[in-house]
Amino acid sequence: MSDGGPGDGDGGDGVLSRLSLNQETVRQWSLPELADGCARAGVRGVGLWRAPVRDYGVAAAARLVRDAGLEVTSLCRGGFFTAEDPGERAAALEDNRAAIDEAAVLGTGTLVLVSGGLPPGSRDLSGARERIADALAQLAPYAAGRGVRLALEPLHPMYAADRCVVSTLAQALDLAERFPAGQVGVVVDTYHLWWDDTVGAGIARAGGAGGAGSRIAAFQLADWVTPLPEGVLLGRGQLGDGSVDLRWFRERVDAAGYRGPIEVEIFSPALWARDGAEVLAEIVERFATHVR
Amino acid sequence: MSDGGPGDGDGGDGVLSRLSLNQETVRQWSLPELADGCARAGVRGVGLWRAPVRDYGVAAAARLVRDAGLEVTSLCRGGFFTAEDPGERAAALEDNRAAIDEAAVLGTGTLVLVSGGLPPGSRDLSGARERIADALAQLAPYAAGRGVRLALEPLHPMYAADRCVVSTLAQALDLAERFPAGQVGVVVDTYHLWWDDTVGAGIARAGGAGGAGSRIAAFQLADWVTPLPEGVLLGRGQLGDGSVDLRWFRERVDAAGYRGPIEVEIFSPALWARDGAEVLAEIVERFATHVR
Repeated sequence: MSDGGPGDGDGGDGVLSRLSLNQETVRQWSLPELADGCARAGVRGVGLWRAPVRDYGVAAAARLVRDAGLEVTSLCRGGFFTAEDPGERAAALEDNRAAIDEAAVLGTGTLVLVSGGLPPGSRDLSGARERIADALAQLAPYAAGRGVRLALEPLHPMYAADRCVVSTLAQALDLAERFPAGQVGVVVDTYHLWWDDTVGAGIARAGGAGGAGSRIAAFQLADWVTPLPEGVLLGRGQLGDGSVDLRWFRERVDAAGYRGPIEVEIFSPALWARDGAEVLAEIVERFATHVR
Repeated sequence: MSDGGPGDGDGGDGVLSRLSLNQETVRQWSLPELADGCARAGVRGVGLWRAPVRDYGVAAAARLVRDAGLEVTSLCRGGFFTAEDPGERAAALEDNRAAIDEAAVLGTGTLVLVSGGLPPGSRDLSGARERIADALAQLAPYAAGRGVRLALEPLHPMYAADRCVVSTLAQALDLAERFPAGQVGVVVDTYHLWWDDTVGAGIARAGGAGGAGSRIAAFQLADWVTPLPEGVLLGRGQLGDGSVDLRWFRERVDAAGYRGPIEVEIFSPALWARDGAEVLAEIVERFATHVR
């Protein structure tokens, strides 16, 4: 490559070539703008979200991205498995089968799962976690038959009530390890896990022998900045702006045998207000400085 | 007691008589209003904060509370040990010695410590945690000499960057156990710990044999409600309004041998906007329903 993209000048270690851009980081871009912008910047992977992909058309999105020479590194997201009502549970499973089908059409082997919070009025965290295991048991073989691995994402404990009762990498692994490694993996996301002094041990555990047994299905980056905004959903920081030792995470994940894409997923109104190409160029530069 | 206070009708298990009201829960009350209000409601313990106590005068506050027949169950707070600058560290130690002295004057054996976040620009969580241990080593004998135990409080991981790098009960115990149990204990606060599937094991570990070895220096209650407000400091829920299984916590702490006060500490603008006596009556009622 000679276009100044991240594949250049990475000293042969290949880390920059693993950079993938999650679509929500530049939500100001349409899907064609995303494909074009990544291709121009030499970024070879994109993480996609279901809603914009469905709006564009799943098959058309797959073609668009493929024609731009990009790999879809993950699809976000399935999950929300914790309802107690049988009708809601059936609907969630059906929706997750649709998400698996969409991932297969997009050619990605990774469907990210946000497991769901507590049902209204419930205080039973362990019951909710068991319902996640039940859902995985039903979905994992279906996904495997379509070449898709389910990627359980532990979310920061501040989301435990309303979004995801799986709050640590250890919890995610406890669930994933009930299933074959090729069917259920985990997501290592720096934003959610950075505070945990057991996360290094969890990454090593997730890596297993670093070969076929590896549970690391995706590795995502965002930085932690304060103060958190109301609702705490959209306050993630640009790489290098916050408290997370991103390189430490990358080295741990590498040491665990992971060789896959490194996806940048930052939900930030400040980034969304800027020119997408400028944001992406800044990400490439920050990635080289703080991750590589 | 025959004034309808919480000592009445608790079936002889004594749980209601252990209710203590943390001052910040009813910050609309002056210190005399707090003393009078608790005495009228039959609540026998109060948790105090340094700033309002100093404004009133430490010795005068001690007299006021004692004359109302109340026990000071804890003083909030010391801590903020994580600065790297030597001058800042010395100032923090000096301020903590003053807090210990104030606790001794108030007659409480428990000084709650919020350990501090990352220094500006730092990403070194383990270094910050070591500086906490260094500060405890300097302060614990001084506190013990004045009959005060240091109570390390693990705060929710959402405060790890800017307030407290001690995020789990296991981390707090790892630090506390470097010191004699009579010198350094831990705070079990439901708001900070409810999401953690290892907290039950942590409480049992903190209890030790349930006797002199117990590390549980304070037990505090608040409920978890969403959405979180900007800055995530003042969004705690009234007992029973949120996701926390408060009775589960109380039973675990009891099983670990803890027999001390159960302090209600809720930071909530919605409670502060109401009549203090009405808020306290509601707390007593909720405590009977959700904790006892």
